[in-house]
Amino acid sequence: MKLEMICTGEEVLSGQIIDTNAAWVANELMSLGIEMQQRTTVGDRLDDLVTVFQERSKHADVILVNGGLGPTSDDMSALAMAVAKGEALVENVQWREHLVDWFTKSGRVMAKSNLKQAMLPESAVMVDNPVGTACGFRVKLNNAWLFFTPGVPFELKHMFTEQFVPFITQEFGLADNTQLHKLLTIGYGESALADMLTELSLPDGVELGYRSSMPHIEIKIFARGDKAIRALPEVTKAVKQCLGTAVVAENKATLAEEIHGRLFQSGFSLSVAESCTGGMITSQLIAFAGSSSYLHHGLVTYSNESKVKVLGVSPQILDDHGAVSIATVEAMADGARKILDSDFALATSGIAGPDGGTDDKPVGTVAIALATKQGVYSQMVKLPRRSRQLVRSLSAAVAYDMLRRALLDEAVIVDYPSIGRFDK
Amino acid sequence: MKLEMICTGEEVLSGQIIDTNAAWVANELMSLGIEMQQRTTVGDRLDDLVTVFQERSKHADVILVNGGLGPTSDDMSALAMAVAKGEALVENVQWREHLVDWFTKSGRVMAKSNLKQAMLPESAVMVDNPVGTACGFRVKLNNAWLFFTPGVPFELKHMFTEQFVPFITQEFGLADNTQLHKLLTIGYGESALADMLTELSLPDGVELGYRSSMPHIEIKIFARGDKAIRALPEVTKAVKQCLGTAVVAENKATLAEEIHGRLFQSGFSLSVAESCTGGMITSQLIAFAGSSSYLHHGLVTYSNESKVKVLGVSPQILDDHGAVSIATVEAMADGARKILDSDFALATSGIAGPDGGTDDKPVGTVAIALATKQGVYSQMVKLPRRSRQLVRSLSAAVAYDMLRRALLDEAVIVDYPSIGRFDK
Repeated sequence: MKLEMICTGEEVLSGQIIDTNAAWVANELMSLGIEMQQRTTVGDRLDDLVTVFQERSKHADVILVNGGLGPTSDDMSALAMAVAKGEALVENVQWREHLVDWFTKSGRVMAKSNLKQAMLPESAVMVDNPVGTACGFRVKLNNAWLFFTPGVPFELKHMFTEQFVPFITQEFGLADNTQLHKLLTIGYGESALADMLTELSLPDGVELGYRSSMPHIEIKIFARGDKAIRALPEVTKAVKQCLGTAVVAENKATLAEEIHGRLFQSGFSLSVAESCTGGMITSQLIAFAGSSSYLHHGLVTYSNESKVKVLGVSPQILDDHGAVSIATVEAMADGARKILDSDFALATSGIAGPDGGTDDKPVGTVAIALATKQGVYSQMVKLPRRSRQLVRSLSAAVAYDMLRRALLDEAVIVDYPSIGRFDK
Repeated sequence: MKLEMICTGEEVLSGQIIDTNAAWVANELMSLGIEMQQRTTVGDRLDDLVTVFQERSKHADVILVNGGLGPTSDDMSALAMAVAKGEALVENVQWREHLVDWFTKSGRVMAKSNLKQAMLPESAVMVDNPVGTACGFRVKLNNAWLFFTPGVPFELKHMFTEQFVPFITQEFGLADNTQLHKLLTIGYGESALADMLTELSLPDGVELGYRSSMPHIEIKIFARGDKAIRALPEVTKAVKQCLGTAVVAENKATLAEEIHGRLFQSGFSLSVAESCTGGMITSQLIAFAGSSSYLHHGLVTYSNESKVKVLGVSPQILDDHGAVSIATVEAMADGARKILDSDFALATSGIAGPDGGTDDKPVGTVAIALATKQGVYSQMVKLPRRSRQLVRSLSAAVAYDMLRRALLDEAVIVDYPSIGRFDK
């Protein structure tokens, strides 16, 4: 089965929104062992839509089309499909009645423009949308089934899982058996990682891939076929041996996810005191349901006054050492931990830029501390100063990794080749 | 000039990473008045790359190719281009020497795999990369110039601005004059907004577009040509009149950006006390350089103990009313404001879900308060409970809008059609 995707919408093509739907769909397909062959993104111009439907339907077996089913005049996927197929748009009575019902039940007035959403190409098979006003549909053209889904992510996800996957399974059977194992690394560049793995010989059907998504580089170990899948644990073990301390998590998208899992299971509590990371450490954890069970508080003490009044940092320490210093960040971590006697506390204070650097402490200088019931660990690192966002995300990653190592009873502070460190 | 983009890489096609480069490029082009015609995303398979280079080069005048220039074995854009053109890969001596220099100067050892990055198709014109080890290049095939750029966002941005834009300007001249005005709205659905604007007659060359990106819907007013651009202020005024209080910002990507601008200019200070929003309000503001000038602190008091010890909320209030209540959130805002005598303080406390709801206070119930030097404003809203992320981002948006209105001396609390409210 050759599967392609067509993403429509001026806002996606023109970069007004980032196409998270495309990534979500491809990820879901991969977990089903189905590879996407190609993705084409087009705007809202009728001619372009018609051309791309006609052209891609000669190459693919099934095409997931996303977007353009809304009520407004720039939503024209149904019209374009009708033109491509050389047929009329006709009202789908079942969906019109569903719409009338839907608005009545929710006590809202139906906008006139919603009626457009019941107009489908004549040969279309309607596909139910249990959570929105845009129905999906599918149409056969040339070699391919074109399967139309709404652009609203929540609605797409429902329709993909409940309708599209059963459809392709029934129509084309199941795909090759595949499996993916992911290793999250920190502190090495892509080429350094590749060189470390160059001597490794991989069995047939196993491939390595790299994904750079700062502050991490992810290594994907992909196995296709039963034999390769059986070899996967052995290959994973060999890769981990080559990389040593660079590997910080397995099959997790971020270090935050790794930390959430470990804290949630362990019963230990955490407090966070952030300056330059500005709530990033806290908010990445709170994105996970259940974080309230371990997270006492996250105190973003941006001003010196706040460090003194909220965390109890001594004004003398700030005067003597400055806000970005080992002494201050240790006092921040200690203060945040002691307020509620948490098991752990993380603290950051640094210069995220673009301004605020000095000769002694240039942009990218960040002090990070982990307070435990036994004592405080700290380091002051020199991070690449490419962007404010990068300095902040790398600071958060190093802080998470210190906590991760403490939770595993490993050395809290280790060297990362691409990250410098100031002597204490 | 017909401009297309080809994004390469298994990690982009398979959704392992979200393609922010494509959105960034399209956005930059739009600000130059250049429309992208189509975007094709392909994986790392050599055959697929060759086919798409040959195929798209028949339709476009210029194609920006992104990715696949790295040192690892799955980076094969240069090889694919050589195959598509029917020529050999040859070493670019200039770039090899540059690489050797680059590694020597930065005191690092060059990985063997980096040498691959100097291998270009025979007819390629090398394009400098001042910030990375992958040089760009351009090759003419069929109708089109294919212009190859690195996948690392930072490197792409340099090369796009410093090399690609001058190249297309020289080769194809300047594009049509265009202008875009964006209105950010809150509290209305896309079809409700479209209906409110249906009577509006637009001059030639002016188009309306909608972009749903919860918690906002953005209305784009796009003008092409000098006459349409002159009409843009008048059209914008008419659209704003139709929409009334729904419009919360102009030409801003988010409400956070709007608030940052207003606070930065006003000299007023802000403190934030967050429970269910978990640092989102604080960290969205801290993403902007200069936020340290007005943001005193952001206290994520997730546990009741932290609300008491850090913010000074009375245990009696928590006992009598619960954490999610008008009384608690008012005490939180008041407490956060008073610690450093800030001009304003925002506070949130709610049930983000998926668990934790009760009959009285279901998931999506959020109390929000704004404390000022004159008094405290508060409301308890009922938000759609689709996802934890949506409840949190809508809560932040309503909180920002309360502050925005206060900064403008407007009524702090207003009705949003799609957001319910509990009586006090």
